[in-house]
Amino acid sequence: MAVYTTIGAEQMAAIIDEFNVGALVSAKGIAEGVSNSNWLIETEGTGSGSLRFILTMYESRVDAGDLPFFLGLLDHLAEHNCPVPRTIHDRENRPFRLYEGKALALIEFLPGVSVSEPTPGQARAVGAALASIHLAAADFPASRANAMDLVAWQRLLGDCGEQGLATIHPKLDRIVSSELEYLSAKWPTGLPRGVIHADLFPDNVLMRGEEVAGLIDFYFACCDLLAYDVAVTHAAWCFSGDGARFDPELSRALLEGYEAVRPLGPDERQALPILARGAAMRFIATRAYDWLHTPLGALVTRKDPMAFVRRLAFYADPANVGIFGLV
Amino acid sequence: MAVYTTIGAEQMAAIIDEFNVGALVSAKGIAEGVSNSNWLIETEGTGSGSLRFILTMYESRVDAGDLPFFLGLLDHLAEHNCPVPRTIHDRENRPFRLYEGKALALIEFLPGVSVSEPTPGQARAVGAALASIHLAAADFPASRANAMDLVAWQRLLGDCGEQGLATIHPKLDRIVSSELEYLSAKWPTGLPRGVIHADLFPDNVLMRGEEVAGLIDFYFACCDLLAYDVAVTHAAWCFSGDGARFDPELSRALLEGYEAVRPLGPDERQALPILARGAAMRFIATRAYDWLHTPLGALVTRKDPMAFVRRLAFYADPANVGIFGLV
Repeated sequence: MAVYTTIGAEQMAAIIDEFNVGALVSAKGIAEGVSNSNWLIETEGTGSGSLRFILTMYESRVDAGDLPFFLGLLDHLAEHNCPVPRTIHDRENRPFRLYEGKALALIEFLPGVSVSEPTPGQARAVGAALASIHLAAADFPASRANAMDLVAWQRLLGDCGEQGLATIHPKLDRIVSSELEYLSAKWPTGLPRGVIHADLFPDNVLMRGEEVAGLIDFYFACCDLLAYDVAVTHAAWCFSGDGARFDPELSRALLEGYEAVRPLGPDERQALPILARGAAMRFIATRAYDWLHTPLGALVTRKDPMAFVRRLAFYADPANVGIFGLV
Repeated sequence: MAVYTTIGAEQMAAIIDEFNVGALVSAKGIAEGVSNSNWLIETEGTGSGSLRFILTMYESRVDAGDLPFFLGLLDHLAEHNCPVPRTIHDRENRPFRLYEGKALALIEFLPGVSVSEPTPGQARAVGAALASIHLAAADFPASRANAMDLVAWQRLLGDCGEQGLATIHPKLDRIVSSELEYLSAKWPTGLPRGVIHADLFPDNVLMRGEEVAGLIDFYFACCDLLAYDVAVTHAAWCFSGDGARFDPELSRALLEGYEAVRPLGPDERQALPILARGAAMRFIATRAYDWLHTPLGALVTRKDPMAFVRRLAFYADPANVGIFGLV
């Protein structure tokens, strides 16, 4: 949550001029994005009034080699009428530019707010929007492996070490060890694959009332099981932030919204409980790693790994398989 | 440069609703303001299209008791056609509200960018804008003492201590001691007084080309010598950031711009060298204090006090009095 790089007004005007969107009027650094710098940009436009954009500078955590995938995906989805922001190409039709060695992309600004207490109507709309990108990306030609897969969870949690995990919770090492063993043995194969968002938390959805105005922050997007993306989104939307309280209404609405656009196959539905356990493990892994590796006083707020340990316990309880329409 | 307080979208919508400016469409925390949290807000407006505002939450450094002065001043100056943002009053006509014990004000959004390398035309426009607020505030009824006066400089530098100052520069204690003695003995009295901005750095001016679109951040505004405000603005605009290079063209343009609107009296002109030395000392004092009291790794970037020691040396050199039209 910060702007890591300072760009003077004169440099900013020169950067924006390269995109042929009219002269710079205003640039405000915004406090969004964990690892990128972002500015809300206004220009005079090129005819019918002012225009707004988000300018993103990719700092260390995003590999510039992945940008053609991320930015090309936005353009592909926007062309297919999915609610995602379009990438603005520069005068030489490049989707991003370099500035002092860092990649910079200019992305359409979409209005809307990120809700913190979703309504069922909002969860339904998000489910439908997720399904729409799964369908629309079917003919997207590029691909990218999931860098946050089961192997990555094992590696991240291994780096935390038994003692590190114990500083978070005395039983955490035992919980994740046995769960990783279970997930390795039982992780489904053969389910429909495609491009997934892989991080569709409420933070990454702009809402206007009960409509999805924009899905944003595709920097974990990759090719993986479509139903896994449903599971990630379920874990992200259907619980209180601390994971202690499951909301069956949000869950029902999210799944119904998804299936209204793309019905799940029986094999996908059957796999939802383990995929949801995997989704919980994915965020336990990154949160535990960041918890132990974020210096105190750093710009980034640490997020509690235990919030996803509680979700994991919920998903692993056979009494709860009914939420996915299973008995 | 940060947003210190998190406000969920639902709470934000409720807060904005209290101001009768239409429903919330977008809220982005912006990385501006050293000690306040700020959001760029868009609403649906109440008739002819969307509206934009800055929502400011006053954190510890601004005394809420001063807000009626600061916000009332903005309204007064805006009514007198000065380029400043208007304060939006809430449904009960209050200029600010409380949220979880902190004051919140909604302020008109003005387009424009803060330049880092001003042109003479920009300096001229800023001089004229400064004079326009000096004239327009003449009948502003409220008053506020300057909390950053000579007594405050002495106190801040006293708190730094001889040894603290020595960690910044071996001669700093000697320089400031003898300068404070000189300023105490010779500080002018009897010059025209009024409301001054007292911190008109390029950061606090929004420009569109060579026009001033907005003077902002009036949180040091107070009643003091008008010519002292000219001196502060001179120190802020007419040097390279590190204070090593004086720009005579910017200096001429700034003073000409000011005098085109409000000519300086002979006594004010005569006092400019000592007022400029005082202006340099004011920023040496706060920067040295912050330099020694800002924990490493804090959110705020420390600013080099020596940049104003160099300005002080320039202003104190009798060879340079000609820049103020004196011989």
